[in-house]
Amino acid sequence: MLVVMEKNATAEQIRAVCDRIESVGLTSHPIPSPAGRVAIGVTGNNGTVDAGALEGMPGVAECVPVSKAYKLVSRDHQAESTVVRIPTALGEVRFGGSAVAMIAGPCAIESRAQAFAIAERVAASGARLFRGGAYKPRTSPYSFQGLGESGLKILCEVREQFGLGIVTEAVDKESLDLVERTADVIQIGARNMQNFSLLKQAGRSTTPILLKRGFSATLDELLMAAEYLMSEGAREVILCERGVRTFNDHTRNTLDLSIIPGVHRRSHLPIIVDPSHGTGRRWQVLPLARAAAAAGADGLMVEVHNDPFTALSDGMQSILPDEFAQLAVEAGQIATVLGRTLN
Amino acid sequence: MLVVMEKNATAEQIRAVCDRIESVGLTSHPIPSPAGRVAIGVTGNNGTVDAGALEGMPGVAECVPVSKAYKLVSRDHQAESTVVRIPTALGEVRFGGSAVAMIAGPCAIESRAQAFAIAERVAASGARLFRGGAYKPRTSPYSFQGLGESGLKILCEVREQFGLGIVTEAVDKESLDLVERTADVIQIGARNMQNFSLLKQAGRSTTPILLKRGFSATLDELLMAAEYLMSEGAREVILCERGVRTFNDHTRNTLDLSIIPGVHRRSHLPIIVDPSHGTGRRWQVLPLARAAAAAGADGLMVEVHNDPFTALSDGMQSILPDEFAQLAVEAGQIATVLGRTLN
Amino acid sequence: MLVVMEKNATAEQIRAVCDRIESVGLTSHPIPSPAGRVAIGVTGNNGTVDAGALEGMPGVAECVPVSKAYKLVSRDHQAESTVVRIPTALGEVRFGGSAVAMIAGPCAIESRAQAFAIAERVAASGARLFRGGAYKPRTSPYSFQGLGESGLKILCEVREQFGLGIVTEAVDKESLDLVERTADVIQIGARNMQNFSLLKQAGRSTTPILLKRGFSATLDELLMAAEYLMSEGAREVILCERGVRTFNDHTRNTLDLSIIPGVHRRSHLPIIVDPSHGTGRRWQVLPLARAAAAAGADGLMVEVHNDPFTALSDGMQSILPDEFAQLAVEAGQIATVLGRTLN
Amino acid sequence: MLVVMEKNATAEQIRAVCDRIESVGLTSHPIPSPAGRVAIGVTGNNGTVDAGALEGMPGVAECVPVSKAYKLVSRDHQAESTVVRIPTALGEVRFGGSAVAMIAGPCAIESRAQAFAIAERVAASGARLFRGGAYKPRTSPYSFQGLGESGLKILCEVREQFGLGIVTEAVDKESLDLVERTADVIQIGARNMQNFSLLKQAGRSTTPILLKRGFSATLDELLMAAEYLMSEGAREVILCERGVRTFNDHTRNTLDLSIIPGVHRRSHLPIIVDPSHGTGRRWQVLPLARAAAAAGADGLMVEVHNDPFTALSDGMQSILPDEFAQLAVEAGQIATVLGRTLN
Repeated sequence: MLVVMEKNATAEQIRAVCDRIESVGLTSHPIPSPAGRVAIGVTGNNGTVDAGALEGMPGVAECVPVSKAYKLVSRDHQAESTVVRIPTALGEVRFGGSAVAMIAGPCAIESRAQAFAIAERVAASGARLFRGGAYKPRTSPYSFQGLGESGLKILCEVREQFGLGIVTEAVDKESLDLVERTADVIQIGARNMQNFSLLKQAGRSTTPILLKRGFSATLDELLMAAEYLMSEGAREVILCERGVRTFNDHTRNTLDLSIIPGVHRRSHLPIIVDPSHGTGRRWQVLPLARAAAAAGADGLMVEVHNDPFTALSDGMQSILPDEFAQLAVEAGQIATVLGRTLN
Repeated sequence: MLVVMEKNATAEQIRAVCDRIESVGLTSHPIPSPAGRVAIGVTGNNGTVDAGALEGMPGVAECVPVSKAYKLVSRDHQAESTVVRIPTALGEVRFGGSAVAMIAGPCAIESRAQAFAIAERVAASGARLFRGGAYKPRTSPYSFQGLGESGLKILCEVREQFGLGIVTEAVDKESLDLVERTADVIQIGARNMQNFSLLKQAGRSTTPILLKRGFSATLDELLMAAEYLMSEGAREVILCERGVRTFNDHTRNTLDLSIIPGVHRRSHLPIIVDPSHGTGRRWQVLPLARAAAAAGADGLMVEVHNDPFTALSDGMQSILPDEFAQLAVEAGQIATVLGRTLN
Repeated sequence: MLVVMEKNATAEQIRAVCDRIESVGLTSHPIPSPAGRVAIGVTGNNGTVDAGALEGMPGVAECVPVSKAYKLVSRDHQAESTVVRIPTALGEVRFGGSAVAMIAGPCAIESRAQAFAIAERVAASGARLFRGGAYKPRTSPYSFQGLGESGLKILCEVREQFGLGIVTEAVDKESLDLVERTADVIQIGARNMQNFSLLKQAGRSTTPILLKRGFSATLDELLMAAEYLMSEGAREVILCERGVRTFNDHTRNTLDLSIIPGVHRRSHLPIIVDPSHGTGRRWQVLPLARAAAAAGADGLMVEVHNDPFTALSDGMQSILPDEFAQLAVEAGQIATVLGRTLN
Repeated sequence: MLVVMEKNATAEQIRAVCDRIESVGLTSHPIPSPAGRVAIGVTGNNGTVDAGALEGMPGVAECVPVSKAYKLVSRDHQAESTVVRIPTALGEVRFGGSAVAMIAGPCAIESRAQAFAIAERVAASGARLFRGGAYKPRTSPYSFQGLGESGLKILCEVREQFGLGIVTEAVDKESLDLVERTADVIQIGARNMQNFSLLKQAGRSTTPILLKRGFSATLDELLMAAEYLMSEGAREVILCERGVRTFNDHTRNTLDLSIIPGVHRRSHLPIIVDPSHGTGRRWQVLPLARAAAAAGADGLMVEVHNDPFTALSDGMQSILPDEFAQLAVEAGQIATVLGRTLN
């Protein structure tokens, strides 16, 4: 942390701040500035002291946080990129490094027929991972909440029938226990990115975890949520950008692709993009999915539905199977431009 | 919902959209516009059809959502304002109608001595409800996570000793079971506003619930979260504004006081304001707390600490007991200007 | 500025960064941190070096800006609060210090009859300053753009007839020349907050200036815009919060009252609040106007219209004369609570 | 516009609203809804009536704006995409349709030597348009404000020497007169997107105009600003996304690529992307530039500097000439994937 003093701060005020810092076991490093404001570097803070309270002391202008509290997720801790590997009957899927992966399927599992119809089409287009929610966090209590266990059963049948690996969401302790037994990847949704109880439980699983960014989570908060998982033992963690809240009204969410180089700079974990939730509008999905691939995403997760208008959930952002087939080809070509391989 | 057609949409395109609407059991109401765009009103949607998928049909410019999915929280459902009443040894506390209430205490319960020292001071200033977290959702897994059950025990002692009612947060199924047995008001925090499993469980409790607005929740999403509680049976629900995420960098969160008249216009539920989290900076707390009272808040929840710099959590936003005493007087005076009474 | 190195940065990398800093005439202050990251304080930067480019050097994690470039607007430069005094036939109006002032009137001057009808009412309620636009920056080229010079003539008549001082907006060089001859306060609108040519010209005027915050301006940017005015010689500058852009959809803009203590902490200039543009919805104006007064605003600027539905501009956010009369009383009472006086 | 009534609105209230609508010359279309709220469609509004004031009438829940006020920029008005053609000595540059174009150069012209060094490199990489500011809108009055007329003279020399077309910014009436005589494309910067006086003047020029999106401008506001240009006669208008303001702190601005399909859906005008201002950090520029190409941008405008650390303006976001050479190749390959051609 850096404590910036007011321009007219007295030597006594500066000393008092340093004393306060030292009194709680930290070290102060005053930086003299002949023409400007004195700043005081603070080191030794392991995150337990919330030193912002110094802002109330005489002569203090402001406190600037500097150090990051994450460790295991950091490139400081592990320089080489983590590659998460998911074995499926169609071959191993890899996220990270030079590998780009595709996840496709409906927002929610609505029926065996719907799931099979979509699974057949996305498998034919080259996808090896199938997404579909059995437990759906919905804004309204009156909206379709997912099929629950019978949805998980359908997902198992999809895997058996088509060889696709399964990605599905857990929303609480009970569903996590069930999802863990079913899924190849456990999804933690955006609304639960800071449900720390759920993160702790999920972090103890040996199944890979897909962690979606919250609606207004900063990069640091996303990495700290992953740190919760890793601090419990998880090693195979995939991050996922899915759009953030802004003033924009031409898109349901604003897809923040700058987080891709942001994550790659600070962390060794792979990051994928969900252009379906990330835009909320079908006609924006393909352009932004291509953009995500070009920005260096380690994968794409796309909602595909064979009859979007009657979808029980999020029909307005699902693309058609034919559109997904086109996207799979284009994403592969864009990956090639970047020296990467779609798998 | 309103479907707005492109200016050059043909009669066939308009008819096709109406047919699609009718085919899923809804009713279409085309509005002719000689000079402009035809719009088609859609009625009969109980929330299960996500009609935005119509945006993909030829001739459709955009779909504008209109109706609200909440029912029990709405003023349409109940015209008179709900007054939540909390009995305490110091007298009944009321939220809503003409009553304005104060909740004060530390962010986290750190020790019996700390809790007692603060409780004594805030009770002396007229507060009848004491806040303090035993379970703390923290951004970092390495930050202080709260004392857990022993924290709840200290809260019980505070109630016995000072007569204060207790407001404390539950973060998952297990802590909710324990908090329910201890607290006079169960707090659901901002990060859990859309933890629907937790909301459903909390909604079945007979203890009043304080529901904090998520970091980037719209008014509708906040009301829908309350609808989850009420649809499970809860009747005594207090909403709480605690600042939202914006581009601002002079404040940790941007307090959105416009949500107070917004809630009062659409819902019968009371809404209070947390100026501590809502600003994140101690020197902003008093001005914004006064502002919240003047904007018509049904109560204030303020973090008070006797030694903010050594606080284990959120010291930088806690005010001192003397500042709280001053605020209590001023909030009462401002309430009087509005024809209301601080209790 | 502070340059934060990666945890594993080598001594050579740290030295190379320091050398680069020194090579452009700045001074480097490395702060050793046994367990954490080395940070390097940079002093001597007068604002001309955009040192962020250091982020590209090996071993650099990030650059954190620290010092502020504003001087004349800063409390470092002038400790006592500026009080802007506007003489009017009804008495002197003061902004700043213990004084709170009211400005009221329609968004746009539409006709002599309209202006007089509103002026009579707001004067009767105690306002001494009348607002009304003759030059209107409108989002659409097809919207009413203001009466121009004939609007300014009507404003002069309002002053003569009712004794009210005049606040009106200039939008370019030509209108500024005309407004300067007419107005008691020159308004620079939100859209022109960073129209630096206009700011430089306005800064050379001897007429007091009301500078509105841009839709998404940070506190620093607002103060830097005021610095443009003051660096050209202006001394009587009043800042104005008018709502910022956020994800909120229950309000047209989100009023950011935290900027009031923010300005008061960093600058000696007065800041007032426009709750009309700041909310964009009539039923939110009174609650937020009261809140602004309670937050410590040095004044309020409120849109009042006698027939909002037929207003040529911004009718949806104008309050009625009777509502203004009520507000004037309440704002005075709230000011009293804070030990201030409405004038 | 759509007026949504409260659920319990009476027939009298509905009739009163319709009467009010008709009284100002508009037409009302009540839409009955057996179970829900009555809505009233309003047609015939040419933009002069700000009907939101209806929100104050009894029984009215809210007013939802529907129609768009732009005409000339709309695809309703012109179905085929506008292709803006800029003749240069190196060949014609085209923006729009299947053509993707590159603009490169320093943020500001600092000297003849600097401009020539950079121009030589970007021309060698295939760029045909050179950017560089002679008039710089800077947040601080103490920052480098550009070389002015002598900067324009250097730009003319760059054109003569290298054959590059010139893109440079005008900030007010005086600079626009000079820029118009010099430039192949007149740039209107983000801070002036709603400087309507400047837009009106620029719209009367016969030189093509590059209009940058404001920091927090909605899609509609951007299109309305272009409408100002076109309503004065301009036909060759290029829009430019340059990042918007959000809560993000890992990037200086958040690049909003979803505006590309948004513009293409509603307007026939081309839209390009500035990934330099759009991210503000050099290491984010290449990933986001590739993403912009993949999202369907009609061009890229990139800041290139041969010595970023000593740049007088925006060094932290400029890429090196070698990085630009790489980007030019990759952008061409990505354009090919989309069936487009880089020129």
